[in-house]
Amino acid sequence: MEKGKASIHFEEPPFIAGMASVAGKKEGQGPLGHLIDVIEQDDMCGKENWEAAESAMQKKAAQLAIKKSGTEKEKIRYLFAGDLLGQLIATSFGTADLEIPTFGLYGACSTMGEAIALGAMTVHGGYAEQVLSMASSHFATAEKQFRFPLAYGNQRPFSATWTVTGCGAVVIRKGGQGIAKITGVTVGRIVDFGARDSMNMGAAMAPGAVHTILQNFEDFDVDETYYDRIITGDLGEVGRKIVLDMMKEEGHDLESVYMDCGIEIFDKEKQDTHAGGSGCGCSAVTLCSMILPKIQRGEWKRVLFLPTGALLSTVSFNEGKSIPGIAHGVMIECI
Amino acid sequence: MEKGKASIHFEEPPFIAGMASVAGKKEGQGPLGHLIDVIEQDDMCGKENWEAAESAMQKKAAQLAIKKSGTEKEKIRYLFAGDLLGQLIATSFGTADLEIPTFGLYGACSTMGEAIALGAMTVHGGYAEQVLSMASSHFATAEKQFRFPLAYGNQRPFSATWTVTGCGAVVIRKGGQGIAKITGVTVGRIVDFGARDSMNMGAAMAPGAVHTILQNFEDFDVDETYYDRIITGDLGEVGRKIVLDMMKEEGHDLESVYMDCGIEIFDKEKQDTHAGGSGCGCSAVTLCSMILPKIQRGEWKRVLFLPTGALLSTVSFNEGKSIPGIAHGVMIECI
Repeated sequence: MEKGKASIHFEEPPFIAGMASVAGKKEGQGPLGHLIDVIEQDDMCGKENWEAAESAMQKKAAQLAIKKSGTEKEKIRYLFAGDLLGQLIATSFGTADLEIPTFGLYGACSTMGEAIALGAMTVHGGYAEQVLSMASSHFATAEKQFRFPLAYGNQRPFSATWTVTGCGAVVIRKGGQGIAKITGVTVGRIVDFGARDSMNMGAAMAPGAVHTILQNFEDFDVDETYYDRIITGDLGEVGRKIVLDMMKEEGHDLESVYMDCGIEIFDKEKQDTHAGGSGCGCSAVTLCSMILPKIQRGEWKRVLFLPTGALLSTVSFNEGKSIPGIAHGVMIECI
Repeated sequence: MEKGKASIHFEEPPFIAGMASVAGKKEGQGPLGHLIDVIEQDDMCGKENWEAAESAMQKKAAQLAIKKSGTEKEKIRYLFAGDLLGQLIATSFGTADLEIPTFGLYGACSTMGEAIALGAMTVHGGYAEQVLSMASSHFATAEKQFRFPLAYGNQRPFSATWTVTGCGAVVIRKGGQGIAKITGVTVGRIVDFGARDSMNMGAAMAPGAVHTILQNFEDFDVDETYYDRIITGDLGEVGRKIVLDMMKEEGHDLESVYMDCGIEIFDKEKQDTHAGGSGCGCSAVTLCSMILPKIQRGEWKRVLFLPTGALLSTVSFNEGKSIPGIAHGVMIECI
């Protein structure tokens, strides 16, 4: 099952048996709006504060994914979940009511990749019949955590991305009926190219994405022609160019197969989100609203899904640290 | 391999093949001081700030555990690691140089349990020959993250614990020679009894610990007589009493087998740490300096190791939220 240096090949691929996406109003107005299961017209979700709203979205996405997969929460053995906030409070307060034994994960915006990788390993390893993997972010909780108070109304450079308000959740199951199968994972490592601009996360994360793509190619002895799509999480317009350039230098032309969830989820012209969407919720929502349905319908046979994370905090940033990146790759195929 | 509702039994138990502990000066002066591999006389570890010091301890503990296990970092397939800081910056900046594919984990002070559980599942599942599991905390980074500036010199109530400056790391390996074997895990779930006092974490975490202990007993059809020791992470004096009382109500007298790492690591009379030690590093350092060697020597045949986490952040606390707890149980036995 070990494959190459950092990858795992699942001989009996676990299935994604259920999926759900919950997102905010702005995401609902974007190109994927009609594909997202639930659009919250109130970004507070009727709660007292932004953090509670993000927790509410997690709970809703979890419950919906479980329901859509035709099971119930008592039959989900483990939960793999995370968010962007310090000490994962969106997850802790969003999932307690589910009463499912929980592994809390932090991979910045790569968390959905980490959650699916560990979930698939757990199911394939015979440790669970069914698990739930989930990640969320919220524009307002992220601005509060990482940047400026919303009321301050600071200007954003064009390299900045817009944190997606949303949560995506998948139920992973051993065989049976399913939406798609998970055939392998490539676990990312922390890659630090010395980027220091927290308003240009795409540049910080691109080298991590490139590292994982190349590792995946090497471990499985494939190249870009093996995939219908290679889809990063939230590199946005700036990161996209860097990935294409870096891959070209390595002898790979990704232009025809490459996509980025951050570019797909917002309308660049109409929505004023600058470089695109970001946050754990960006790749999670795009996966559960657009990518998985396309694979289910057979439009894409094989996808390398690569959520990308920028590993910084306000403390590390203020201490003048660089912003390392990480990307976890999940190979998802048509059943 | 599924066992009961939340546990996993390893038919071919993975081995803990290497262990290392690095800690601060105060921990060095405590009862376990002579057992800890490296005592840093300078809590800054020669770095510019506390966070960089914590990262340096992680790197040192990782390298030493790898060395002591007789392998090299290139042969460690995956790293499971975490800390208490927002966005896991101690881990991100401490482990990048190791160049090992990394799963970032957050379970508050339960992280060492989570890291060992996932590490053992990964090795036992055939996904890796060797992995590294690790967790750290630092008194000064935690005070800065969760409480008051050190220079403010605030008074601490007697229910408060003292965050351990330290890191513990273990290499988990498929068979071969080893220190101890991991025979099972019981994955904790988030338990919220409505505790709200962030200066009394023991009370907040105790119900989570009790839940996991009872789940472990049920899943493996055992009771307290099955273990030589049941050892929680960092409940301290206050949490200890609650665990003993709650377990008694459930018909279990734990008095003769129960220990808490937070009580072991500091000298209550001489070190002025009030309720005891806490932090991810508390259970990790105690495991790697005292618990594992005792199991290796056969003094204890079977231990239930239960790191305990309090799931709060300053944001959740300031928003008036309760403090849920979680505990992950790992069954460690003499080879």
